[in-house]
Formats: sequence, structure tokens, C-alpha cells
Amino acid sequence: MTPSLAAWAAGLVPDFEAALFGRFEDADPGFREALRYPLQTGGKRIRPLLAFAAAGALGADPRRALPAALALELVHTYSLVHDDLPAMDDDDLRRGRPTVHKVYGEAMAILVGDALLTEGFAVIAESPAMVRELAAAAGAVGMVGGQVLDIAGGSQDVVSLTRLHARKTGALIRAAARMGGFAAGADARQLEALTRYGEAVGLAFQVADDVLDAEQDAAPEGPPSFVRLLGLAGATAEASRLGDVACGAAEELPAAERLVELARFAVERTI
Amino acid sequence: MTPSLAAWAAGLVPDFEAALFGRFEDADPGFREALRYPLQTGGKRIRPLLAFAAAGALGADPRRALPAALALELVHTYSLVHDDLPAMDDDDLRRGRPTVHKVYGEAMAILVGDALLTEGFAVIAESPAMVRELAAAAGAVGMVGGQVLDIAGGSQDVVSLTRLHARKTGALIRAAARMGGFAAGADARQLEALTRYGEAVGLAFQVADDVLDAEQDAAPEGPPSFVRLLGLAGATAEASRLGDVACGAAEELPAAERLVELARFAVERTI
Repeated sequence: MTPSLAAWAAGLVPDFEAALFGRFEDADPGFREALRYPLQTGGKRIRPLLAFAAAGALGADPRRALPAALALELVHTYSLVHDDLPAMDDDDLRRGRPTVHKVYGEAMAILVGDALLTEGFAVIAESPAMVRELAAAAGAVGMVGGQVLDIAGGSQDVVSLTRLHARKTGALIRAAARMGGFAAGADARQLEALTRYGEAVGLAFQVADDVLDAEQDAAPEGPPSFVRLLGLAGATAEASRLGDVACGAAEELPAAERLVELARFAVERTI
Repeated sequence: MTPSLAAWAAGLVPDFEAALFGRFEDADPGFREALRYPLQTGGKRIRPLLAFAAAGALGADPRRALPAALALELVHTYSLVHDDLPAMDDDDLRRGRPTVHKVYGEAMAILVGDALLTEGFAVIAESPAMVRELAAAAGAVGMVGGQVLDIAGGSQDVVSLTRLHARKTGALIRAAARMGGFAAGADARQLEALTRYGEAVGLAFQVADDVLDAEQDAAPEGPPSFVRLLGLAGATAEASRLGDVACGAAEELPAAERLVELARFAVERTI
């Protein structure tokens, strides 16, 4: 992150994390601990930052997007907890820490994910537009639908791989931009620009992730990726192009600076 | 069910099921089939009927509770799909049919549950009161919290067993009564009566289930139950008492007939 983006994020993330870690106060102590464990990952909080930046891009106080930011992180975290399960990706580690099912058992990990997803809707209950948006982005034709495509395998071309990632990771990132817009009272034209921004950033992140993975791991085996299909140079160029599309959309908004910086951050991780 | 209750239900359930089976139209065909499979169980649709009856008890057209009824059944169904998973109760059959993970695999069953839960919120997005209610009833201090207590075992007295079931099954039944009330514009006094009704019916159902299980299965082993703790006669009497409490609450409302019949149905299954 650029120093200005990092400073802006540092002004928002501590209050955001305090609110996030303060959820589930009424749950039984043992369950509360399990629920909070995957939230305390030290992740980059990209989806919350996108929601804050989208609200800010319309001239609003970014903190108006706090419920949206919490909902997005709760839903993103549930998806990681369930993706890590033995029946899914069977991962023992997540960001260097044991996954929820390794610490608390598989049954608890299923229930932790279920409760995190449910809580995601609780925090935005006051906003029908946000509930609609999050449900569409997270559900059967969004994130979960993308996960189904992923476990089915077989995205052997750029079109189907793009479709898979537009759902699996892209839908929630698109929702982050749009929910930030809802929080700031976006008009139709602004919402449309945020939608284009979110779609481009979402895909840019995934292409950039594939480039990072390829640079860190020379193994020729593995699932289909943009690097496998486009080559390393091709994928790097595609990430850059998507970043430009995102910045172009952001610059239609009154105060695009943070959205632009976040789009550049999405891409420049690769370089 | 009494003939009048059955006739009333028969006037509501077909349209309800058509709307339920019509969800997920936009999902990919294979996933859509898996999502609809657990919805087509031929279950009694008790939670939807409670929501319809609660709306009707306030003098409203019961069909105003259709979104609530759909949300309740989607969330109830997700909970069954996840409860049946190998890491949870490991059930191969549900109402005589193979469980979702037996038909579609464990990963798909996890994702089917996730998508059903998410869709539950999509259908009531327009009502902040319903989203709040459903999230609280289904989440970490509601149904999922009760499931955590259940897998932890150890409800060896009536107080803790009541607490477990108040969450695991009671919270969603209570929410059914209240959401039906929201659909009909319940005032505070009516909502309070519906809450008492829902709490009593929810527990009555569970006590009656334990009585049914005890009558059908003479095995002395098994998890703690109201029959084990109160004896068969004691549990039967407790179910009857709870039915009376529910009917008393219902009769504070303008048109209590269906709520009363549903409460009697909850109890008289045992006799």
C-alpha cells in the first residue's frame, strides 16, 4: 500500500476491528472464542476497505459504511472457514495459523461458519438494499455458486475461469463497492460506476493472486489459473488492464482517490 | 391435524411450495437440483403454517406472511442439511430419503446449506424487523448456539435441556410466530402474546417429539430427553401444560383459531 492509503486505512481499521471482535458478546464463552478466532487473522480487510472507500468516493464519511464493512468481513470469513473444511479444500493452515476445524473440530467449524454468515445479515438488517445485495453476492448465483463451479473443476479456458472467479471472489468484492455506495446514498449513475469498479477490481485481485502464486511456486501442476491460460506476462498485463478499467470507473466519482489507490494496490502486489 | 386445520393448510401450502420450489431459478442446473432436493421433503411445514396462522390471528390475510414462511422453511432446511453431515449427526436418511450429502457429496451438502441460509435472508430483505428476528433466532445465540450445546452433550437436568431446546428448535418456532405478527403489523401487546405462544409451542413440540420417540423406541440408551428426565407420564403432562399456555396466549388475539389448533396438534401427536 502507498503511505497515504496505509494511513487512511490505519484511521479506519482499528475501530472496524473493535466492532468486529465485539460481536457475539452474548454467545456462550466457548463458542464465542471459536467464532472470534477466524476473525482475528490479521488479514488485509480488503472488502471493508473497499466499502469505506466507496462511501468516501461519494463525499460521505467512510465510517457510514461500517455495517456494510462488518457484514462483508463476516461473510468473507465464513466462506474461508467452510472452504478450509476437510470435505472442501482440507486446509490445515490459514495465514500461518491452524484452521478453525483443526483447533475446534469439524462440527464446530461448520457451526462457526453458519453463525458468521447469519451475523453478516444481522449487522445490515436496517438496509433492505444491502441485505438484497449481500444475499445475491454470497448465495447460489454468487460466491457459493462460484465455489460449486470450483469443486466441479474444469475451467479450462479464460471465459469459464473468469465466470468462476466473478462468482467465487468477484461477487463479494463487487458487493463491497456497491454496499459502500448504498451507505453514502449513491444515485443510479454513481452506483453503476461503483459496479464497474467492483467488477474490475474483483477480477484484478484474482488475476494478481494467480501471478503471485506462480511467482512463488514454480510447480507446473495445480488447478487452472490465469497464468496457466495467459502466461505470466499475459496475466500480469491483464491485471494491469483491469486496474486501469477500475480506475477509469472510479474517476467518474467525486472523490476517487482511495478507490484508485486500492485498485493500484490490487494490481501492484504482482510487480 | 383436525379436518378444519388440514383444510386451512391445504389452502396455503400448495402456493407456498410452488414459491419455495421456484427459488434458485438462476442457479446452474446441477446446483439448482441439489438445492431443491432437501426442500421437497413432504414435511409438515410447521414453521410456515405458524407464520401464516400468526398473521391470520391478527385478522390479516395469512398470505401476507409468505416471505416469512419461505425464509423460515429455507433456514430450517439448511439446518437439517448441515445437521445430517458426517461431522455432525452423520445421518444417511431424512424422512426416508437419502440425505443431501449421501446423494450429492459432502462438499455440495455444505454449500447447499450455505446457499439455503443465504436465500432465507434474500426473501425477507424488505423487512428489517424480520431480518433482525431471523438472524437472532438462527444465529449464535439461537439455533446454531443450541446446536453447539447439543454437540457438547451434557444436558442432564430439565433446566439445561429446556435451555438447549429453547435455542436449537424453539428459537425458530418463536420467530415463526413473531414474523407472522410482523407481516400483519402486530402492535406491542399482540407481539408479546405471539412471543409467549411461540415459546410454549416450540417447547411443546420438542417434549412431544421426545414422547413420540420414547413410544416408538424402547431402547434405554440415547441422549438426554424430557422423557428420560420426567418419565413418560410426566413428559406427556408437560406437553399438555405447554399446549395450554400456548392456547392461553393465542386467545388474547382477535382470531386465534388456527394458532389454537396448531398448538393442540403439537401436543396431541403424543397421544
